[in-house]
Amino acid sequence: MPKASPRSLPSLSLRIDFDTLGRRIGPGKIRLLENIHSCGSISAAGRATNMSYRRAGLLVDEINRICGGAAVETREGGKYGGGAKLTPIGLSLVAHYRKIEHSVEKAARRELLALRADIGKPKGKGASH
Amino acid sequence: MPKASPRSLPSLSLRIDFDTLGRRIGPGKIRLLENIHSCGSISAAGRATNMSYRRAGLLVDEINRICGGAAVETREGGKYGGGAKLTPIGLSLVAHYRKIEHSVEKAARRELLALRADIGKPKGKGASH
Repeated sequence: MPKASPRSLPSLSLRIDFDTLGRRIGPGKIRLLENIHSCGSISAAGRATNMSYRRAGLLVDEINRICGGAAVETREGGKYGGGAKLTPIGLSLVAHYRKIEHSVEKAARRELLALRADIGKPKGKGASH
Repeated sequence: MPKASPRSLPSLSLRIDFDTLGRRIGPGKIRLLENIHSCGSISAAGRATNMSYRRAGLLVDEINRICGGAAVETREGGKYGGGAKLTPIGLSLVAHYRKIEHSVEKAARRELLALRADIGKPKGKGASH
């Protein structure tokens, strides 16, 4: 989701909570998956997402656990260093997340406009008394 | 927002990003504000939110900065220890956040059902090949 400039509408970041045990998918994991899809490897996707090779690999392991099946499939060349691609599970996760984000942006637009009108200015007039 | 049990629909957590400089309001800050509203003090609200007195006070300062004006007004008895209440800015922030959350839950319901059908089981059948 594009980030808001000081003049633009506040934007929403979404996290999907699958349960109360910390199985969560948010914008960082989705961006990593999209970069794996476009870069074709976990290490390149990590670089594109400004994260270390190790961090990207650990996140992929976590995403696979959350999905209850592989979202990312690796090929030869080491656990995270070889080629990688999204499985149908990974593709489905990304697609649903982006669709939810789109619906949410539309649904929340009126309230975000009202919120911007009420508050959210970097320097305001102070509280009403 | 109620948290999902393993059988229930995945739930969404929302964060509102006012800009790219880290001015963000998410469920933790909103819950703290609601507890200040119901408890009438920052320290009691901190306890109700399972956070230290100091952490609750720092979050209130941050929320006030984000809003560009006081969202919480304190009374006598020390900076965080006396009574406190939400200003119109604080009340508006909480109300808009909860309305956005409500619209978003309605808008995302169909996609969340589809997502639950595709993935998100704690133990799955593995990736499709």
